[in-house]
Amino acid sequence: MAESLVRKLSETATVDKLSTEPLPGSRKIYIQGSREDIQVAMREVSITPTQLQDGTKEENAPIRIYDTSGPYTDPAVNIDVRKGLHPLREQWIAERGDTEFLDAYTSEYTNLRDRNVALENLRFEHNLKPRKAQAGKNVTQLHYARQGIITPEMEYIAIRENLALSEAEMVDAMRYQHPGQSFGASTPAYITPEFVRSEVAAGRAVIPSNINHPEIEPMIIGRHFHVKINANIGNSAITSSIEEEVEKLVWSTRWGGDTVMDLSTGNNIHETREWIVRNSPVPIGTVPIYQALEKVNGVAEDLSWEIYRDTLIEQAEQGVDYFTIHAGVLLRYVPMTAKRVTGIVSRGGSIMAKWCLAHHKENFLYTHFEDICDIMKAYDVTFSLGDGLRPGCVADANDEAQFAELRTLGELTTIAWKHDVQVFIEGPGHVPMHMIKENMDEQLEHCHEAPFYMLGPLVTDISPGYDHFSSGIGAAMIGWYGCAMLCYVTPKEHLGLPNRDDVKQGIITYKIAAHAADLAKGHPGSQIRDNALSKARFEFRWEDQFNLSLDPDTARDFHDETLPKNAAKVAHFCSMCGPKFCSMKISQEVRDYAAQKEMDGVAQEGMEEMSDKFKEQGSALYYEM
Amino acid sequence: MAESLVRKLSETATVDKLSTEPLPGSRKIYIQGSREDIQVAMREVSITPTQLQDGTKEENAPIRIYDTSGPYTDPAVNIDVRKGLHPLREQWIAERGDTEFLDAYTSEYTNLRDRNVALENLRFEHNLKPRKAQAGKNVTQLHYARQGIITPEMEYIAIRENLALSEAEMVDAMRYQHPGQSFGASTPAYITPEFVRSEVAAGRAVIPSNINHPEIEPMIIGRHFHVKINANIGNSAITSSIEEEVEKLVWSTRWGGDTVMDLSTGNNIHETREWIVRNSPVPIGTVPIYQALEKVNGVAEDLSWEIYRDTLIEQAEQGVDYFTIHAGVLLRYVPMTAKRVTGIVSRGGSIMAKWCLAHHKENFLYTHFEDICDIMKAYDVTFSLGDGLRPGCVADANDEAQFAELRTLGELTTIAWKHDVQVFIEGPGHVPMHMIKENMDEQLEHCHEAPFYMLGPLVTDISPGYDHFSSGIGAAMIGWYGCAMLCYVTPKEHLGLPNRDDVKQGIITYKIAAHAADLAKGHPGSQIRDNALSKARFEFRWEDQFNLSLDPDTARDFHDETLPKNAAKVAHFCSMCGPKFCSMKISQEVRDYAAQKEMDGVAQEGMEEMSDKFKEQGSALYYEM
Repeated sequence: MAESLVRKLSETATVDKLSTEPLPGSRKIYIQGSREDIQVAMREVSITPTQLQDGTKEENAPIRIYDTSGPYTDPAVNIDVRKGLHPLREQWIAERGDTEFLDAYTSEYTNLRDRNVALENLRFEHNLKPRKAQAGKNVTQLHYARQGIITPEMEYIAIRENLALSEAEMVDAMRYQHPGQSFGASTPAYITPEFVRSEVAAGRAVIPSNINHPEIEPMIIGRHFHVKINANIGNSAITSSIEEEVEKLVWSTRWGGDTVMDLSTGNNIHETREWIVRNSPVPIGTVPIYQALEKVNGVAEDLSWEIYRDTLIEQAEQGVDYFTIHAGVLLRYVPMTAKRVTGIVSRGGSIMAKWCLAHHKENFLYTHFEDICDIMKAYDVTFSLGDGLRPGCVADANDEAQFAELRTLGELTTIAWKHDVQVFIEGPGHVPMHMIKENMDEQLEHCHEAPFYMLGPLVTDISPGYDHFSSGIGAAMIGWYGCAMLCYVTPKEHLGLPNRDDVKQGIITYKIAAHAADLAKGHPGSQIRDNALSKARFEFRWEDQFNLSLDPDTARDFHDETLPKNAAKVAHFCSMCGPKFCSMKISQEVRDYAAQKEMDGVAQEGMEEMSDKFKEQGSALYYEM
Repeated sequence: MAESLVRKLSETATVDKLSTEPLPGSRKIYIQGSREDIQVAMREVSITPTQLQDGTKEENAPIRIYDTSGPYTDPAVNIDVRKGLHPLREQWIAERGDTEFLDAYTSEYTNLRDRNVALENLRFEHNLKPRKAQAGKNVTQLHYARQGIITPEMEYIAIRENLALSEAEMVDAMRYQHPGQSFGASTPAYITPEFVRSEVAAGRAVIPSNINHPEIEPMIIGRHFHVKINANIGNSAITSSIEEEVEKLVWSTRWGGDTVMDLSTGNNIHETREWIVRNSPVPIGTVPIYQALEKVNGVAEDLSWEIYRDTLIEQAEQGVDYFTIHAGVLLRYVPMTAKRVTGIVSRGGSIMAKWCLAHHKENFLYTHFEDICDIMKAYDVTFSLGDGLRPGCVADANDEAQFAELRTLGELTTIAWKHDVQVFIEGPGHVPMHMIKENMDEQLEHCHEAPFYMLGPLVTDISPGYDHFSSGIGAAMIGWYGCAMLCYVTPKEHLGLPNRDDVKQGIITYKIAAHAADLAKGHPGSQIRDNALSKARFEFRWEDQFNLSLDPDTARDFHDETLPKNAAKVAHFCSMCGPKFCSMKISQEVRDYAAQKEMDGVAQEGMEEMSDKFKEQGSALYYEM
């Protein structure tokens, strides 16, 4: 029974039609860069014309939207999850001439799995040959950046971040946008490939892009770029299957997940990961200690550097783009958590704390940090330095343990940079609003402007069932303060495993937070979509309003609940107030009235005269009327 | 057919059982004040004991929660919506000796409705006799406060705001709470009745409490008290019935609505309001211009002071506690909106703008402002000075029109205060995060610290279907900055009319925002519930965790989706990670380990010794191990 189910997977696995249709009113476009094989994918929403009073129409330009959904939403691409996505970066990686294909996987565990015939039917069938840096070579984007090399990845990112606008178009767009408050960030109005390179070289941005994951559409995480979001997926011992996880991956990228972390802890996580990486257009992150612990049957004390090292290599050769590594959980910090309300809540942090205490030795991730760097640079895996001592409740926020670890992460950043390995830093957790900024300030100072990647933070603990929202508040704020990527939280946080709808709720919530942060930072071009949607709203172009929404399906459904008829979508009033009370309608009449008055010189003059009188006499004028 | 349906209402109207059951794990308690008829209602959540390692138990104190649900959640009270709630303030009002019962309603419209036999079956049957200030008397709480009188309402509020804690208990609770950042607010650790009085006297707080609404449990809106939230209900021309609106009212207060605005615009809004007011334990607000416009068949130009005045009196004698009045929409401000992306989006604002332009006269709400004050003080109706020119999109935020109106609202505040009429000020709308604080600063400055009441603000326009959330971000922030009440937004905002579930989503979202604001301000006692919930979480007391949540039902349902068995609710692991990976479990082991080490002196010494070595040698120590 189990086997036939498994066989079904490798033979028939597909991805839900719902996840592969283009979004409403949208088409996939590709903007070519300096060479033919740089084709930057983007979503273009077509907008209907404005109906003018005189019966004529005024065209509205289509709106281009940063698109994380990869080839799945391009009807011209034939999706077959059993084969994986087209490896668009393969040529770029190959032509750098600093890598080689390995004849066999380096990891002992991988070879063990590969020899296990019982797993035959679970396995992804079109694995790529593993690639590794040639001896003595460093293949990280940071290394190239520091050599002054602008990689195709960097150019791709520049076009993508500009939403394919020209410099002149961006300058024009900025005229209809509020200047932001940037807290020391200094984003140029127009992103050039050279700017991307310089930010990566400075360590202020990372491009997670394992050479064994050529399928990704390059993206960047850094304070001077659009704020990104991460979605977590992953089966656990308790529920969910490989196919479900692939579905969640595709679903996550459809709604805007910029990266996806595979946090699987159940059986067959090696095989699950193959499926995920080969089918992912976005960088994949993992927490290797989870799998390492599986390998020692869940007994933290039995973990060893050798087992962990093999796990890193196993995952690096599969193509994982970034690793969460809890190397900052030091032995001497562990007692700092004993008096906390909720102790250590990071799974990785608690595993390492237990190991440290059991052996009375320093965290082996810390003592072997340079060994880890050697692995990272051979595949270009980016460090996501984990905050194993993050607070698990508001009471524990910003405490000694948390900030002690953060300083250690700063030291480790310097070591990683010595090896030209890309780094970003993870942050908490649970923090009341007024203590959020301190997190950003401390991180910038102690981690030398390496990008910050926050989980939330939740601004209160009393919202189980709604923690996507209470964390989304914190996420929006820290995004504004300078956090580069926000790790989503779903409504099921603290309660259960997210299903498909929870994943979507989490993502949309975090897209709102990230976009709100972009607006507040004054990120170039970020207000274009808001302006277009609001103009559509004012002009009762309902379909445009839906199509420009983060979630057009829900917007349309909600509208149709109250006014189901198609006719209502061209009605010049809203479903809330009905025709008589519509303020938008009245407001348009006011505008028309004002315009007419302007033509009618005398009346207009009268109004201005009255207005002048007002300035002189103030309100007394009208009391006397 | 229509009539029989209507007859059904007055004969059989009930309120859904779902809305009248106590919340899980909770009971209603009443704390007596200085006199027997001051019985402050509160919800008490009982907490199970902590299981200690040695098999013994440690008691956990019950947690008291600010409760807006009124008698509905008290099983000892027999609820009959056809009769209305017990008028708990009646004696307090009567004994002040400054009011009189009228023999008949003052409003012509009310008398017209009362004579209409066709409405017989729609009518609420147990209307109170209307009360009014005796000639020359002023019956506002502000007036009493300025006379140095501490009313029973003020004492009730003091006990309620302290969550029934004693001063010593509050001081103790503050030791387990982060000091907040208050932006100039100065809330004492313990709220005395005298403090309530002084805040009302200073105009920094209001107690909406119409003498014709004796059923309310007194509450206060001000920067030095818990941040409050308002829920909007109201039928429109398009959908919903009287019974539905009463249901929504009860439902709203169940989940935490501190006040409810009845924004009905459809038929029979006079009768709908009777039902709502008589059954509401929270203050009711309205926008009288909506009904006035109904009376002139929706033609704004036909509005007049006389019709409006009659509407104010009609609603004041029904017991409406606060009126939104758009008296700041001045003729000379209207042209300032012509170049906006979304013009005027406030319904009241656009109605008044249209009237001003059509007559080329100043807003009659402005010119008759002192006449309005005379009505307000005869019933103690509080002004909610409406922001008719609020921005309807991010692009229009903080513009000339908006701030010009705000300054006028400040002038009007001074006039209202001259009459000892209570005032608070409405705010927008749509504002990107970095421009929110300016709203609070401008309001504090120009409106002389009168309480601020915000609608959101939405921090982006691109989230139709999720605008409860994008506005919730802004609401949390401005609550922190000093806004006293947050007007909820539901997921249906901009799209349709909220149903029961939308109302709940909106309320819970705003409860999170308000509570997050309390925590960030360091409001006394605000962290008690967070700490209790987090302790329950850490100790795997699942039921306590659910019961302390803002929405216990949803928390429990979400948990049960993944781990449905009752046994799982006493399991010492979470449904997310399963037994092997639970960080809370590992963390408890770490704590036990640390405790054991502490008992075992030698080993502990060894750890400290190692830690000292670390401080001297730093990481080099471990690289050498």
